[in-house]
Amino acid sequence: MALAEPLVLYTAKICPFAHRVELALAETGLESDKDFVRYEIDLKNKPEWYQPKINPASKVPAIAYGGPKAAGDQPSPSSTKLAESLVLLEFVADLFPNSSLLPKDPVLRAKARFFIDTFATKFAPANFAFQGGKAPSGAEGLFSAIEQLQDLMAPEGLAIGDGKEFTVADAAVVPFFARMEVSLKNDFGAYPEGEGRKAWETLQTDGRFARWRKYWETVKARESFKTTFDEDYLTKQYSTRWTRA
Amino acid sequence: MALAEPLVLYTAKICPFAHRVELALAETGLESDKDFVRYEIDLKNKPEWYQPKINPASKVPAIAYGGPKAAGDQPSPSSTKLAESLVLLEFVADLFPNSSLLPKDPVLRAKARFFIDTFATKFAPANFAFQGGKAPSGAEGLFSAIEQLQDLMAPEGLAIGDGKEFTVADAAVVPFFARMEVSLKNDFGAYPEGEGRKAWETLQTDGRFARWRKYWETVKARESFKTTFDEDYLTKQYSTRWTRA
Repeated sequence: MALAEPLVLYTAKICPFAHRVELALAETGLESDKDFVRYEIDLKNKPEWYQPKINPASKVPAIAYGGPKAAGDQPSPSSTKLAESLVLLEFVADLFPNSSLLPKDPVLRAKARFFIDTFATKFAPANFAFQGGKAPSGAEGLFSAIEQLQDLMAPEGLAIGDGKEFTVADAAVVPFFARMEVSLKNDFGAYPEGEGRKAWETLQTDGRFARWRKYWETVKARESFKTTFDEDYLTKQYSTRWTRA
Repeated sequence: MALAEPLVLYTAKICPFAHRVELALAETGLESDKDFVRYEIDLKNKPEWYQPKINPASKVPAIAYGGPKAAGDQPSPSSTKLAESLVLLEFVADLFPNSSLLPKDPVLRAKARFFIDTFATKFAPANFAFQGGKAPSGAEGLFSAIEQLQDLMAPEGLAIGDGKEFTVADAAVVPFFARMEVSLKNDFGAYPEGEGRKAWETLQTDGRFARWRKYWETVKARESFKTTFDEDYLTKQYSTRWTRA
């Protein structure tokens, strides 16, 4: 598949929201820096032009689409600037209507979007609370959110339909599961020492999470995940963020 | 346009989220109680079967789609149950890909979705805070959110593209503007007496909101709005909710 117009993705390796869009682009078969420009933004030291010229909210991900071919740091005023990771996921799916990103069946499309809604309203706050040491019942809120997602998953494989196709539902959650793994197994978090590792151990062994484990194996085996996720880089970044006194 | 399968919409006249879906269905040309079943849920006294059989979250709107034709209160286990208003807006657009609800151009589709995101992250919290008497700078937060939406609107007409087509962006915001009008002009809110009326006066006269006023006129003249919004009913309902001591 090929793009009709030039596309620059403004992204950052560390950011799970940006990772969503990288996964979606990879799943369409587009290659970074061949079929589109991947421009890494240093979130701790953003270029001056980024907020005024690309995203008024100053966040990643953002896409510049159309206009003349231009380097990432010399954006053309005539390209359209788009932002917000879920909007961008749908945008990539719209650019490639024959990709797997959205099923053809309206009911399955609704299920993919409902899965993302459940992730956003259940998993994201529970994960954030646990990570920040503010979850009243420790890892239990996170566990319960994972079970709710499991309940919405196809019996095997990926999330939606027959589990054989990678959809926007997978693209939306995978970056957060990947970062959860790094955080928990290295005990990076504001919870009492050892609680992250213990939660990870539970996720690895408890029968409650059998479906999630299979899901996670399936995802990690995919080329799109391997080419877009750099575990070593993330581990290094997170280790400085969560150093315990 | 006609539906391929039976559709029951579970809704409530008072609920802005449910109103979104009623507007989208009306804009496809479907007629309530002819082309689909409109089932009113009394939110203060929900039927026992609603939560277990239709929506585990027990909220409106929800849709039962497919399966045999069935009365709203006798849902078939073989229909698919779908929920969450924004998921349902996309679902209606997917059922009617040739309707205006989503433009054909991927960039305009992204703009429609970004408009909804801005509504959700800027207008909704500001409106809620003002209504609840908890807005630190009175109506100014609400005003500023309306300006942000104005900035994203087509120069005239409806929200997206050339302003000629009613899209999911309009369906998502219109129910909240309608309820804002009822609340402000009747001074229904937890703010100090008179502040609602004053804010409404400002929205009606201040040059800052010229684009919004035209937008609101355009929307109110539409058949889809007239058939789905019952101002008298809402005024009566709100008046008991916000009675001042």
